[in-house]
Amino acid sequence: MKVLGVIVEYNPFHHGHAYHLQTAKNLLKPDVTIAVMSGSFLQRGEPALTDKWTRAEMALSQGVDIVMELPYSSAVQKADYFAEGSVAILKEMGVTDICFGSESGDISIFYRTLHLLKENEKIINKETQKYLRTGKSYPRSFSEAFHSMFPEEKSLDLTLPNNILGYHYVKAASDTSISMHTIQRKGAGYHDEKPSDASSIASATALRTMIAKGKKLQSLAAYVPASTLDLLSAYKKQYGILHSWENYYPMLQYALFRTSPEELKGIYECEEGLEHRLMKYRTAESFAEFLDNLKTKRYTRTRLQRLSTHILHGVTKDEVKQASGKPSSLRLLGMNKKGQQYLNRKKKTLSLPLLSRAGEAETMADQLTVRSGDIHSLAVDSRNRQFEHKRRIIIL
Amino acid sequence: MKVLGVIVEYNPFHHGHAYHLQTAKNLLKPDVTIAVMSGSFLQRGEPALTDKWTRAEMALSQGVDIVMELPYSSAVQKADYFAEGSVAILKEMGVTDICFGSESGDISIFYRTLHLLKENEKIINKETQKYLRTGKSYPRSFSEAFHSMFPEEKSLDLTLPNNILGYHYVKAASDTSISMHTIQRKGAGYHDEKPSDASSIASATALRTMIAKGKKLQSLAAYVPASTLDLLSAYKKQYGILHSWENYYPMLQYALFRTSPEELKGIYECEEGLEHRLMKYRTAESFAEFLDNLKTKRYTRTRLQRLSTHILHGVTKDEVKQASGKPSSLRLLGMNKKGQQYLNRKKKTLSLPLLSRAGEAETMADQLTVRSGDIHSLAVDSRNRQFEHKRRIIIL
Repeated sequence: MKVLGVIVEYNPFHHGHAYHLQTAKNLLKPDVTIAVMSGSFLQRGEPALTDKWTRAEMALSQGVDIVMELPYSSAVQKADYFAEGSVAILKEMGVTDICFGSESGDISIFYRTLHLLKENEKIINKETQKYLRTGKSYPRSFSEAFHSMFPEEKSLDLTLPNNILGYHYVKAASDTSISMHTIQRKGAGYHDEKPSDASSIASATALRTMIAKGKKLQSLAAYVPASTLDLLSAYKKQYGILHSWENYYPMLQYALFRTSPEELKGIYECEEGLEHRLMKYRTAESFAEFLDNLKTKRYTRTRLQRLSTHILHGVTKDEVKQASGKPSSLRLLGMNKKGQQYLNRKKKTLSLPLLSRAGEAETMADQLTVRSGDIHSLAVDSRNRQFEHKRRIIIL
Repeated sequence: MKVLGVIVEYNPFHHGHAYHLQTAKNLLKPDVTIAVMSGSFLQRGEPALTDKWTRAEMALSQGVDIVMELPYSSAVQKADYFAEGSVAILKEMGVTDICFGSESGDISIFYRTLHLLKENEKIINKETQKYLRTGKSYPRSFSEAFHSMFPEEKSLDLTLPNNILGYHYVKAASDTSISMHTIQRKGAGYHDEKPSDASSIASATALRTMIAKGKKLQSLAAYVPASTLDLLSAYKKQYGILHSWENYYPMLQYALFRTSPEELKGIYECEEGLEHRLMKYRTAESFAEFLDNLKTKRYTRTRLQRLSTHILHGVTKDEVKQASGKPSSLRLLGMNKKGQQYLNRKKKTLSLPLLSRAGEAETMADQLTVRSGDIHSLAVDSRNRQFEHKRRIIIL
């Protein structure tokens, strides 16, 4: 039996995602396709446009059979932890093949890089430290160290987020029996803020920017399936907003006034005296202003957004340690008939509890995930809000 | 030299306050009058209608010469700590006489009660425990214990907040050389929610209820001096609101979703499993609904409002312990010429630092007070907000 796994955020699901999903399915002809998807807040430390249920429905509408939630403690993380958590869940779910998007579409480059890095781990780490000491960010330092040591290895550009993620997927899967595949990405670059006119593929970042700028949802029609457009429109109608950081900034700002510098130090990813910078700039009038003030050469925007997300959630170093990177449960977000049949058979052999009610939270990883879902919903007007314990999984 | 001290909240300053102040001054003919006033949040666990600067100006406009701030850790407290903190600050400021309002206007009753309670402390505490075990609140249990033991002592009704406060003022001053005086209160009862038509005296509670119900400020004109009305109107014009708990409920609710039950247990005054009730009712859509759900026979509304205030501020048991009940500084809110002259002379002999800049916060007590001022201001739209470090004292 062939079970395809994909690792996604779908924020929102667009033509690029559809292309990847369809191509992977054509290539591998899986019996069932499982997506593991970040929940209420995303890898780059941003709130999802809609709740996770709506995004799960986008995925199911476009050919995914089962959508699993990547817990908060794995989702709002650097590429390595994000990849480890995602692959671990797919493995538990019985996935035989994982297919991810990359710039090259050549899986062998990832294996060669993995080999080079394993063989030279110590020296690369040492080299990375040198660049770090010049004040550069970690991703940049690592990439420069790697490319200065292996100048002939131009094929895998480790400054590109998709390549870094892909590398970590391959690494995380290297001690499992899962077969890894990659498909060349089409159209827009990961960070592109404007869709190119020639293509029907825009990055999710570009689509979110269009939404944030107040463009009509209809203007997304060229770049997303009709199901995405319908779901976004229905969500906005029901809840009044599509979520962005600015919706959460009043909470973040309040948290920064409520929390002492000593407590801030205990927040996950608050390192190296960052608490003083956070305190200094907490009077900013918007999240954009706050982040602009906070930014330095050393700390990437993404790093600071993730830190802001952890402060917003009051997630401590200790809590993340308790949650650990290993999955403690399997959180089901949605499924179709085919997915349901697969799960009915698979259920008996699962080694972790399968949670199909959103409010269930025995372990720390689950508690953080539920906390995140509830905090995500606080941006909605109190009369329309739906807290986690009231939600049911999506069955299409 | 005669220095009169008064202990006030002035939320807002009304004719009843004016009557007390004028009568006390006529009685004692002080050279200077000093008020110690709770700051951004009040003894009963409510946000002040305006910032503390505006309320200090109300006091100065009506014949107070110096307004000192009662720090958060003494202000948002039961009657005993509130009284101890207030008397301690007035003592440091060189006050010779304190005059407070009471139902009887007879100071000897307070001294007799103090004597009885001191003589019978152990047995009264034991008796109080009996009533507590039946599920009654502490104030009610204490009062019933006292009156069952001394049925002939009908004169001092210890269920009335003003009498309890008065008793604790007298107790706190009993080992100082300060002379205590009391003046019979006129007009409305402490808790009355509606002003009586016959009198120009309404309780501050009644006035706040009128404001909360959306009545025009002009309808307060019969009950407050013109200076109060002008200052309230100007405040509302500048900041857009007169503060009430509902303005802070979104923050409180978010704090209750952000904070784990274990952390909640560390919050000051969160005792006896209250954290579970707080978690249970945090989905309420308004503060009124939240408090109605939370209330039991055991916990008074005031007690729960104070707890809510501590949660709002993230004030822990440990922080309040560090702040201690003893004043660590003297926080000046405002003064007139006469007050300034008094302070210029007095300054050299003060045993505590006199802080005249709002943002100054060396000690824990000061840090909590500044935190409270900043959180109070977060209810104001971000463009109009003024944080503590930008404020200057009021000089009239």
